[in-house]
Amino acid sequence: MRGIWLEDGALSLRDRLECPKVNRGEALVKVTLAGICNTDLELVRGYYPYTGILGHEFVGTIVEAPSQPSRVGSRVVGEINVVCGACEYCAAGLSNHCAERSVLGIVGRDGAFAEFLRLPLENLIELPPAVSDEAAVFVEPLAAALQIREQVHLKPEHRVLLIGAGKLGQLIGRVLAPVVSELVVVARHSAQVELLEKVGVKVIDEAIIGERSIDVVVEASGSSSGLDLALKAVKPRGTIVLKSTYAGKASLDCSRIVVDEVTLIGSRCGPFRPAIELLGKGVIDPTDMVIGRYGLAQGLEAFKAASERGALKVLLEPGDVRGNM
Amino acid sequence: MRGIWLEDGALSLRDRLECPKVNRGEALVKVTLAGICNTDLELVRGYYPYTGILGHEFVGTIVEAPSQPSRVGSRVVGEINVVCGACEYCAAGLSNHCAERSVLGIVGRDGAFAEFLRLPLENLIELPPAVSDEAAVFVEPLAAALQIREQVHLKPEHRVLLIGAGKLGQLIGRVLAPVVSELVVVARHSAQVELLEKVGVKVIDEAIIGERSIDVVVEASGSSSGLDLALKAVKPRGTIVLKSTYAGKASLDCSRIVVDEVTLIGSRCGPFRPAIELLGKGVIDPTDMVIGRYGLAQGLEAFKAASERGALKVLLEPGDVRGNM
Repeated sequence: MRGIWLEDGALSLRDRLECPKVNRGEALVKVTLAGICNTDLELVRGYYPYTGILGHEFVGTIVEAPSQPSRVGSRVVGEINVVCGACEYCAAGLSNHCAERSVLGIVGRDGAFAEFLRLPLENLIELPPAVSDEAAVFVEPLAAALQIREQVHLKPEHRVLLIGAGKLGQLIGRVLAPVVSELVVVARHSAQVELLEKVGVKVIDEAIIGERSIDVVVEASGSSSGLDLALKAVKPRGTIVLKSTYAGKASLDCSRIVVDEVTLIGSRCGPFRPAIELLGKGVIDPTDMVIGRYGLAQGLEAFKAASERGALKVLLEPGDVRGNM
Repeated sequence: MRGIWLEDGALSLRDRLECPKVNRGEALVKVTLAGICNTDLELVRGYYPYTGILGHEFVGTIVEAPSQPSRVGSRVVGEINVVCGACEYCAAGLSNHCAERSVLGIVGRDGAFAEFLRLPLENLIELPPAVSDEAAVFVEPLAAALQIREQVHLKPEHRVLLIGAGKLGQLIGRVLAPVVSELVVVARHSAQVELLEKVGVKVIDEAIIGERSIDVVVEASGSSSGLDLALKAVKPRGTIVLKSTYAGKASLDCSRIVVDEVTLIGSRCGPFRPAIELLGKGVIDPTDMVIGRYGLAQGLEAFKAASERGALKVLLEPGDVRGNM
């Protein structure tokens, strides 16, 4: 099959990859649509040494499921962490932190930028008809945005600052705006600003953010200047949520954290079912973020488009090139 | 009066400082004993621009209290944050973060390394006879150590790592050991190790601390290598408490924080009354940490002793030199 391969920091389109062979309890999924995420771009930049097929945001159809044949034909999204179910984290209900996990297209497991992928059946969640394929490809990042609300008790009176309004920031803005009294966003690119303003989120200039004025800051820019702004803006006893992975280290004014007793929380993957619910009910429609759809044959071009400054969501359609094989 | 003055990073002993004039609601306190803390040493190194008399750990006697004359003669310790009582932090019960605060010997208010100091009467807490002067001078740092238990829910099953066993680390070790299943400490200096082992705390070599093996790490070394060790040792979903102020910025692997969803909490001042209680009951006896007592005339020598690598608590006895004035 065809897929987009990362090795030693170089992306390539490969035509003759072996189709995944499903193990007991797994399913083979034909990928309908997949989304390029900033983590994919960071992996290409070397944030984590990964070799294999990239991609972890997808929607597809189960085409093989030896241990549960009745699920063949289901339209599904998939939890990306493949876990052991037995370690202390799995036992404690924190299986996303399973010490033995592989992660689709990120750690030790080929990903979704290919015609087919394999995942355990327990990772795959059926989609209701109300969720279109184009919306469903956002389930994984929307769940990651919702994870902020899982980890931090956002109160109605909170003033919240979101730094960064890119692929993930757009979704964070949409899940935070309804639950706090004020959400302000710092965004650098006009297309990002327009989309957020259309959904009622207030975009402001960072220069007018008062020092120590914000209850909860979400840092989703992945830049060191974003972290500096977060630390400047957060109130004493306030919270900074770190939502972006960074290549390299960031420098941090630790005394500010100590003196103001600030809490910094790292946040990664989130719950799929509430994300599917929000999309199904139309509470959140992220499809306005799509800036391009590419067949796998144009995969490298798609990555180029996704890497442009300020770029929003670029989708890959693996099915589009099956006839070319 | 005599006092130890900091200006432009230079310490000096001054003989002719004006004795503080108490405002309404304040008391004049004759300082019996005062302790040199790492924050004092950091202030000398320029961590925060402060000009005035240093010192914030003290025990003394109220000698003037115009609005409550009955309190004259009381032996007291004092909360170091002098607050407005009206801002949003004071209203929310977070008065240690009062936006208008001055802080004894740290921010905009002359401190305790002098014969007399002034503080609001509401900051001063009477000591029970069971607490000796030498123990009482530890109330402020012991309260700061207890603040960890105010902020983080330490559970009986937790494995806790304390990095640094200096002035504050010694006290942290003593307040954490009784409440968790395992406390291990990384300490660099033999005198620090001996004292901790005497109170039953296990000191281990940092080389044998497993990666991702610790539920809660307390970073009290104030060093960038301590922060690196904390991040290496903490479990996914674990907590790092930052307890030391640093001059300058520290560099931090933010991706580790994000991927492992680690929480970093800054921690500063704590509750005085529980600290007094622990000292009064003899549950904690910190007086074995005292390595020297100096009159104010030997104040600069005292600072030198306190700055030695691995030094524990150096005390100043302002009363000792009154006759010399």
